[in-house]
Amino acid sequence: MSHVIVTIGREFGSGGREFGRRLAEELGIAYYDKEILLEIDKRTPYSLSYIQNVSENRPVVLPPINYGNSFLLYKDAGMEQHTDVFRTQSDILKEISEKGSCVIIGRGADYVLRDKHPYRIFVYADIASRIERCKKRANDEEKTYTDKKWTRYIRSVDKKRRAFYDFYTGVEWGRKENYDLMVNTTNGDIKAMAHHCAMMIKDLMSSEER
Amino acid sequence: MSHVIVTIGREFGSGGREFGRRLAEELGIAYYDKEILLEIDKRTPYSLSYIQNVSENRPVVLPPINYGNSFLLYKDAGMEQHTDVFRTQSDILKEISEKGSCVIIGRGADYVLRDKHPYRIFVYADIASRIERCKKRANDEEKTYTDKKWTRYIRSVDKKRRAFYDFYTGVEWGRKENYDLMVNTTNGDIKAMAHHCAMMIKDLMSSEER
Repeated sequence: MSHVIVTIGREFGSGGREFGRRLAEELGIAYYDKEILLEIDKRTPYSLSYIQNVSENRPVVLPPINYGNSFLLYKDAGMEQHTDVFRTQSDILKEISEKGSCVIIGRGADYVLRDKHPYRIFVYADIASRIERCKKRANDEEKTYTDKKWTRYIRSVDKKRRAFYDFYTGVEWGRKENYDLMVNTTNGDIKAMAHHCAMMIKDLMSSEER
Repeated sequence: MSHVIVTIGREFGSGGREFGRRLAEELGIAYYDKEILLEIDKRTPYSLSYIQNVSENRPVVLPPINYGNSFLLYKDAGMEQHTDVFRTQSDILKEISEKGSCVIIGRGADYVLRDKHPYRIFVYADIASRIERCKKRANDEEKTYTDKKWTRYIRSVDKKRRAFYDFYTGVEWGRKENYDLMVNTTNGDIKAMAHHCAMMIKDLMSSEER
């Protein structure tokens, strides 16, 4: 199999991470998710929780109060740090992609690595099955959530992911044109779906080798 | 394998029909596409070309000129015939789905047969690869088309499909929430993709049997 980069965009609670991990196992290639945050942590002066907070969130740009009175370019510290994290993240994604075949979860990797022609997957599901999945891994506080609260929470995470993606890529998160395959996990067995998807990618790679 | 209904929605020129045919072959089940039109032809007084024209097109509703002056319900002949074709088509789809496992191309079958929980696939591709595919099967007149004309033509067919689907189903054509799998054929080998997709559906069916 030739060099392959698989990127996974995913709705929160859809099982995209599990799908990606299984895909990497089936293909016998590297898997990157939170490892990327730890690497950003090493390379920048920011705290891990700050990095975690901004690495998939859109920066909030607040013009200074004298904005209307000045044509001078202003520097916004929050924005600068945010861009710094994004730039470091992009550098890491590029390094990772050069090391060898891999599966990368989120972080706009499909866009950052577009010149490498990654196989771009988007994983999604209906809200009921996402709530069910979230409940299974809920912590003590989350165990008290009602379905209504879960819905609000899930939608708020997706909203942030969408805003991050749209802000940095200029294209629409979850829009079919930006993906090679879109997998709805609502009624499916993620293990089986990842297996067949891995077989499809293997075929694709070997046909590109010829 | 238990009873399975697979529906294929597709953008014009994306290879959705080929994908569906190969899928049916791999699964060893029936395949329905234009056969449905012939069956409508048998059951209604309308000509095949009329049926072909309306079976995936939204009806154009023209209020009569006395519309503003009357509260009486009016009957629009065009609309009635259109609905007649759609109703006959829906009946045929239901009969087909009861006969046994099958793959059905287009015709809002995913919506009409929603109670049977079909496996709903949507096939799409970028405009360049769709033009290329169309050119390969072009007739003499179409062989004179420029890429610009092909783009206009492809978009106009899709526009009709979308309008038909949205009109009769009340949901949005090509929206990911309405499908189990969305396959982009731009860079892929349709034969290989249909093969792996068939394997996935087989797995899904056998796990539902258990």
